[in-house]
Amino acid sequence: MKLGCCYYPEHWPEDMWEDDARRMADMGLSLVRIGEFAWSRIEPESGQMHWEWLDRAIDTLGNAGLKIILGTPTATPPKWLVDTMPDMVAIDEQGQPRGFGSRRHYCFSHNGYRAEARRITVAMAERYGDHPAIAAWQTDNEYGCHDTVLSFSDAAAGRFRAWLEARYGTPHALNETWRNVFWSMEYRSFAEVDPPNLTVTEANPAHWLDYRRFASDEVVSFNREQVDILSKISPNRDITHNFMGFFTEFDHHDVGRDIDLATWDSYPLGFLEQFWFDGDDKRDYMRQGHPDIAAFHHDLYRGCSNGRWGVMEQQPGPVNWARFNPAPLPGMVALWTMEAFAHGAEFTSYFRWRQAPFAQEQMHAGLLRPDGEEAQAADEVREAARVIERLGPQQTVKAPAALVFSYEAAWVCGIQPQGGSFRYLELVYGWYSALRRLGFDVDIVAADAALDGYEMVFVPTLPIAPDGFVKRLSALDCPVLIGPRTGSKTHSFSIPDGLAPGGLRDLVPLTIARVESLRDGVAEEGDGFEVMRWLEHIESELVPEFALKSGRGVVFRNENYRYCGGWPDRPLLTALIKRMSDETGLATTVLPKGLRIRRTATHQFAFNYSSEPVLFEQTGQTIAPASFAITALTT
Amino acid sequence: MKLGCCYYPEHWPEDMWEDDARRMADMGLSLVRIGEFAWSRIEPESGQMHWEWLDRAIDTLGNAGLKIILGTPTATPPKWLVDTMPDMVAIDEQGQPRGFGSRRHYCFSHNGYRAEARRITVAMAERYGDHPAIAAWQTDNEYGCHDTVLSFSDAAAGRFRAWLEARYGTPHALNETWRNVFWSMEYRSFAEVDPPNLTVTEANPAHWLDYRRFASDEVVSFNREQVDILSKISPNRDITHNFMGFFTEFDHHDVGRDIDLATWDSYPLGFLEQFWFDGDDKRDYMRQGHPDIAAFHHDLYRGCSNGRWGVMEQQPGPVNWARFNPAPLPGMVALWTMEAFAHGAEFTSYFRWRQAPFAQEQMHAGLLRPDGEEAQAADEVREAARVIERLGPQQTVKAPAALVFSYEAAWVCGIQPQGGSFRYLELVYGWYSALRRLGFDVDIVAADAALDGYEMVFVPTLPIAPDGFVKRLSALDCPVLIGPRTGSKTHSFSIPDGLAPGGLRDLVPLTIARVESLRDGVAEEGDGFEVMRWLEHIESELVPEFALKSGRGVVFRNENYRYCGGWPDRPLLTALIKRMSDETGLATTVLPKGLRIRRTATHQFAFNYSSEPVLFEQTGQTIAPASFAITALTT
Amino acid sequence: MKLGCCYYPEHWPEDMWEDDARRMADMGLSLVRIGEFAWSRIEPESGQMHWEWLDRAIDTLGNAGLKIILGTPTATPPKWLVDTMPDMVAIDEQGQPRGFGSRRHYCFSHNGYRAEARRITVAMAERYGDHPAIAAWQTDNEYGCHDTVLSFSDAAAGRFRAWLEARYGTPHALNETWRNVFWSMEYRSFAEVDPPNLTVTEANPAHWLDYRRFASDEVVSFNREQVDILSKISPNRDITHNFMGFFTEFDHHDVGRDIDLATWDSYPLGFLEQFWFDGDDKRDYMRQGHPDIAAFHHDLYRGCSNGRWGVMEQQPGPVNWARFNPAPLPGMVALWTMEAFAHGAEFTSYFRWRQAPFAQEQMHAGLLRPDGEEAQAADEVREAARVIERLGPQQTVKAPAALVFSYEAAWVCGIQPQGGSFRYLELVYGWYSALRRLGFDVDIVAADAALDGYEMVFVPTLPIAPDGFVKRLSALDCPVLIGPRTGSKTHSFSIPDGLAPGGLRDLVPLTIARVESLRDGVAEEGDGFEVMRWLEHIESELVPEFALKSGRGVVFRNENYRYCGGWPDRPLLTALIKRMSDETGLATTVLPKGLRIRRTATHQFAFNYSSEPVLFEQTGQTIAPASFAITALTT
Ligand SMILES: [Zn+2]
Ligand SMILES: [Zn+2]
Ligand SMILES: [Zn+2]
Repeated sequence: MKLGCCYYPEHWPEDMWEDDARRMADMGLSLVRIGEFAWSRIEPESGQMHWEWLDRAIDTLGNAGLKIILGTPTATPPKWLVDTMPDMVAIDEQGQPRGFGSRRHYCFSHNGYRAEARRITVAMAERYGDHPAIAAWQTDNEYGCHDTVLSFSDAAAGRFRAWLEARYGTPHALNETWRNVFWSMEYRSFAEVDPPNLTVTEANPAHWLDYRRFASDEVVSFNREQVDILSKISPNRDITHNFMGFFTEFDHHDVGRDIDLATWDSYPLGFLEQFWFDGDDKRDYMRQGHPDIAAFHHDLYRGCSNGRWGVMEQQPGPVNWARFNPAPLPGMVALWTMEAFAHGAEFTSYFRWRQAPFAQEQMHAGLLRPDGEEAQAADEVREAARVIERLGPQQTVKAPAALVFSYEAAWVCGIQPQGGSFRYLELVYGWYSALRRLGFDVDIVAADAALDGYEMVFVPTLPIAPDGFVKRLSALDCPVLIGPRTGSKTHSFSIPDGLAPGGLRDLVPLTIARVESLRDGVAEEGDGFEVMRWLEHIESELVPEFALKSGRGVVFRNENYRYCGGWPDRPLLTALIKRMSDETGLATTVLPKGLRIRRTATHQFAFNYSSEPVLFEQTGQTIAPASFAITALTT
Repeated sequence: MKLGCCYYPEHWPEDMWEDDARRMADMGLSLVRIGEFAWSRIEPESGQMHWEWLDRAIDTLGNAGLKIILGTPTATPPKWLVDTMPDMVAIDEQGQPRGFGSRRHYCFSHNGYRAEARRITVAMAERYGDHPAIAAWQTDNEYGCHDTVLSFSDAAAGRFRAWLEARYGTPHALNETWRNVFWSMEYRSFAEVDPPNLTVTEANPAHWLDYRRFASDEVVSFNREQVDILSKISPNRDITHNFMGFFTEFDHHDVGRDIDLATWDSYPLGFLEQFWFDGDDKRDYMRQGHPDIAAFHHDLYRGCSNGRWGVMEQQPGPVNWARFNPAPLPGMVALWTMEAFAHGAEFTSYFRWRQAPFAQEQMHAGLLRPDGEEAQAADEVREAARVIERLGPQQTVKAPAALVFSYEAAWVCGIQPQGGSFRYLELVYGWYSALRRLGFDVDIVAADAALDGYEMVFVPTLPIAPDGFVKRLSALDCPVLIGPRTGSKTHSFSIPDGLAPGGLRDLVPLTIARVESLRDGVAEEGDGFEVMRWLEHIESELVPEFALKSGRGVVFRNENYRYCGGWPDRPLLTALIKRMSDETGLATTVLPKGLRIRRTATHQFAFNYSSEPVLFEQTGQTIAPASFAITALTT
Repeated sequence: MKLGCCYYPEHWPEDMWEDDARRMADMGLSLVRIGEFAWSRIEPESGQMHWEWLDRAIDTLGNAGLKIILGTPTATPPKWLVDTMPDMVAIDEQGQPRGFGSRRHYCFSHNGYRAEARRITVAMAERYGDHPAIAAWQTDNEYGCHDTVLSFSDAAAGRFRAWLEARYGTPHALNETWRNVFWSMEYRSFAEVDPPNLTVTEANPAHWLDYRRFASDEVVSFNREQVDILSKISPNRDITHNFMGFFTEFDHHDVGRDIDLATWDSYPLGFLEQFWFDGDDKRDYMRQGHPDIAAFHHDLYRGCSNGRWGVMEQQPGPVNWARFNPAPLPGMVALWTMEAFAHGAEFTSYFRWRQAPFAQEQMHAGLLRPDGEEAQAADEVREAARVIERLGPQQTVKAPAALVFSYEAAWVCGIQPQGGSFRYLELVYGWYSALRRLGFDVDIVAADAALDGYEMVFVPTLPIAPDGFVKRLSALDCPVLIGPRTGSKTHSFSIPDGLAPGGLRDLVPLTIARVESLRDGVAEEGDGFEVMRWLEHIESELVPEFALKSGRGVVFRNENYRYCGGWPDRPLLTALIKRMSDETGLATTVLPKGLRIRRTATHQFAFNYSSEPVLFEQTGQTIAPASFAITALTT
């Protein structure tokens, strides 16, 4: 695994570049990402290209032996460009324009801006496409950051109508599919269809789902336009995009198919603070991040792009954007680096080389402080580089467990939660975390991915089962656990004929007679476990494998398939995974709090995310806080 | 009492209708409400009327022996209509249009839409007005649902100005009444007056109150336009409208005067979850609803329309619209039905016949599941039908206690809460609930209703006493309890000369020297009771009947009149009701938690809303959870 | 100290004026503020001036021996004026106009409205400028109330661009200073610069800071236009403006320089309820206000305008505008009056004479009730008048402690909190309160004020140290305590070369290597103290004076200078103040909860803000709740 950093030569006096490049190399870095926000320096006025400085920067970095990932600057169009077409900005759900002054101020659906984005991409590709230092391209930056996938602009409305027409052919077909007879929502033409925002009460969920699908497709096609240009003009360079954490607004599997490798931006402390974790976790892990955050995304994005992936931005210290921004415990930056290594990353690139003392991100740490001294993480990067060098390349092996992840499922749950605390990501993360706590490696795979070869398969929820999904499941002979709401919707967001779980009834013969959601703090008790948030009332001739004290069945098993008709707590999940492990012949290891393990073909890595030393019984090692241990596997 | 259901023939293949109708009848239903959202099927293009399908639906239902309540479809104008006058939609308080895509996308003040609403009403009345199966008409649907009473559109501004001119005659009179000299808010013409939204800080409360009165009047006149048409073209049919729960945005007494019977939509579980109930109540009653929710509305709406009323929509299972949506305990649907029966409903109609598997309400249970199988409630409906049949018609008798309810009072408290937790509905509901807990039946009456014949009268609060109110109170010789803030405002939202309680001083000679509101968690202690949220400093020569430990008087009694100058807790309310009962010679029964009783002329009904069996001491019966017991009264 | 009240003759029948004036004088009042909301009565139509009523009001009040503070009515332009230029209203951060219907409905940057404001000011000055009863002028009313400093209108954008051009000269200089290269935010002309609202994510903090500086300057220049007119046309009258509490949206020191004396509006109960105080304080002090609220503002505003100041509006009973509005304990109005007296106020004016029974403030108490009877406070005013008369004028002496306050610091912390609970006002107030709890009088001074002569100097935080600040500090030989983040930013919102604390390193040689913010509920423990919310990682060769248990240094001392690299809790602050007091030879008195003292040249005042009697050990007196004790100082 290579190490790298994100660098902005345009932020620094040119006479610092050479020294910076040398210091990067000395620190063990061999990659550097540049350029993704530099449009106003490349083209300060329309058509006046200023390449010279970038030529020099690229040469300087290349001459130091660094390979460059060059970003297209389309996330930050300059003011002069925006002023030529003010309607290129996105419109938020409340109808407000989202203007210039920060970044990502464009609507994916604006054809004029698309042309400009292609133009600058062509120009950059032509200028640097065959430069020997350019190892890869990054398209744009963090698609969707700051809630920018959905736009409710006229441009979006126009392309949405065309998208609908292409999908449905006639307004009649649209009306029939969405079932617009409900509340007299029928259309006579596609021109009558608006985006689903600013309605009096919620719009048709089928309308919303198609709007989300459309918006996701807009991201995909926007990205593909750049990929097509770059792959043609600058062949033999990897093309990537840097995805984000806990982010489901577009279908990353779709974008992943168009790029050579998926990368993501890893900010474990910020994510812990910003997402659903409870107060105890936020306190206990405030300087480490919850132990599964990084691994979850490594496994998710590894499944997005043929297994090739990397970390484009790794938090090296406090960030600036969470509500509270503590510093990582000493050791955590090395630990995070090794977690990526253990999961098969091609590289880990720290964000950023030197903390910028100005503008929006001035409180975001870098590998260097703003005064050029080394920051907290520098020594840890050197240490990680040494360990990686010593261990040599690691081969990623198929994990015993597959966990099915679906962006569409996230949209469905978001559009129609039915219970206020039914959060897709939290459900999936909980299942993932339970597996990790039992010592398992996990592959997170798309709903249309092949599932054969796994020893256990988990589907936390999949309201809309894609075509062929049931058939693929039915071909498995390993234990399969299917979660609540799976199969509960058709492609067009209706309840299937014969009710949920739809076609999955072929695997586990049962019917969801009705469902109920439970308020926070209310749970239904079973024997040693609880079901919370969501509870299905199941009719089946099967004897339940797990039931509530009231007698109501929660988990039903038919051969190697289990269906769990509720939101299981950790004890129930753990019991289920243990049973499945037993059935498939896998050993489980209940890891102590904060400890996690990950295996490559040749090594086992143990990571201690807690702030106390932890004894790893399997090896007898006591691992210091924020530290890791590596064991060679004897195969 | 008849039973019925809400049905949408347009949602289902025509070949299912006949079977549906037969099954309804078999289940014990004799009424069916249809049509209220079907405009796009009746008139898919402007002026192109498609009656045939509805003719057939009505005939099919009628042929099965069902009587039909036909809804005017004005809550859901089709897109083609909205597009002919895009300014017909309401504008929210922030100035945003509330567009097409769900329902209720119209402004009550848009003259163009009013004309269209009349046109479709005339058309429906002419088509079906003398059809023998049509038993009644429902105007529109749930006026005000989704916060749609108030609109801040140009149309509303225009009609508001005319309303003001009609009320005040001259701008000078308006200025004098609102006292616009304050903050230089004076107008030179009615044309200068805007709606009270989007001001820098709060607008004049007199401005807000008149805007609320105006908006209420707009609902009344919108409704009356349909009533006038229907009563003329389709004589001898009842006209109703389905009101909602815990909803005070327009004056239901005013609408009630124009219709033949008031109906309401009863969703006890959703209401419990969405309104002010505390966490314990929300947990303890999550599958039953708080024991007074249904009864409170029965008693409220019975007082709205000459005593004739019904339940147009009864929750038969989980709903889709609360934050959390649990399923009713087995038995609750029958219990709710019997509670309506015991309160004198003419009918109870379940919403809906078959759960729609599509669109916005797909997670809303029906009597049938989406697959056509019977859902949870079906057997309970049959049971209720049998019991109702067995008992025969019940005669509603005047309750011993009258509780005065005023929509204007709700507006006044909402416009000027003065204390953040002074909620009108919560106050009134608390008094109602205390009465029910002591075993009393209650009539909820308007502030201009006759009060004679009651044995106790309660006025939780009535800031603006209508003309004649004091006089009517003064004619009573039964115990009367008057709550805080009563009489504290003039008709034009000023403090009366001589301060609160204004004219009520004739009944209880005292003056409210000043008032204070108390933050949540702070209470003032008396002997065995507390006052919270609101505390008046009262000057009076009377010796207080109840006082705080500090010596400050809280309740003052003069002959049969009591004034309570604070928000009483349950112990104080209970003590007061017991004293009043003693004085008037009524016996009180302290009912156990969750138990409630209701009497008709011939029977006493006991309802157990708790999830545990409860012993009803009076009869010696132990009543199962979510169950009821009926005793014949020996008179 | 004089006493006065706020009076609105236009609200009352003219035949009441004379009696009102007489009663004011009888109550001990000698000042009356009038006129500030009367524009619609002065000029009911454009150019039609109706002075007669105001002439008579002024004469009537003057004839009763009262001196008048006359307000310019520019906070409430009439509707006819707004309708002549509808774009004069402010635009909020979301882009919505903030229209007519309450008050302060103008944008400070609208040139048309500025001309109108000058016109009415000239007219009033010409009419009354030499009237013998007019003692002073108040410009406008409560600049910034209801969040009205920032406007995002076209008018504001235009003047902002001119302000930038005047400050930076060229777009290039602007780009360099704001470092707009970041995210390609560079401009080619000032015309391209917009206000910083409605951006996709946060705008450049340098952009925001300049927008706040600009907006503050707009208030200053708006006020100065009136000051220039009044001082020219009506010489020898004091000019004041009434500032608010806990309000930092514009630089009051700048406005203070242009007026003769600073006044402020003191609502201790409302402020306690509305601001950050915790639940215990809000309960314990709900009828007294937190013991430092009034004193803090007295000391702050005394430092705003050459030491001349007063209280323009003093709460005399419950107010109408907080979420909860309790009544002051008996005695508090006198206590507040004496606290102002002890702090050197020239006058205290109660808001308002008679409670208005109408419009927005009808629930706001006055000295009289709406019915004309005396309200709670009247007797306390008389008592205060007697005590003041008895004691005679008090001379304010320099306090031992100076506390540096900076509006710019508040903006910086607001723009870039970095930790969600880093609130500037709360930090400063905490330091002030710790000093008062130890018995110290405090002068709150601007960052550019002279600091010599103080025995202790406190700088809770000052991210941007003004030119010369370090030099002034370095000239001191008294103990100086400097808080976190001080010196952490340049004038243009960048991190200084060499990192924080920038130039302050000359005083305490250390470097802030990095900072972290801590979530609520998390603290780092020291020996008997905790650091919370904010923790700096400090590199220094100094041995820390206070360190965490982890060994990390928190407070570093170099000679008479201390730097505290975290948000100190009360114990740490107390320990630091005690050490500093020891070093400078001052005695400390740990006062019991709720007790505070204040000294003039001749007297010591002790105030008991608690609701229990408190023993003041120094004097042996037991002071009743909501009461005070005065001791003559023997010098
Ligand atoms: Zn990023
Ligand atoms: Zn409904
Ligand atoms: Zn004020």
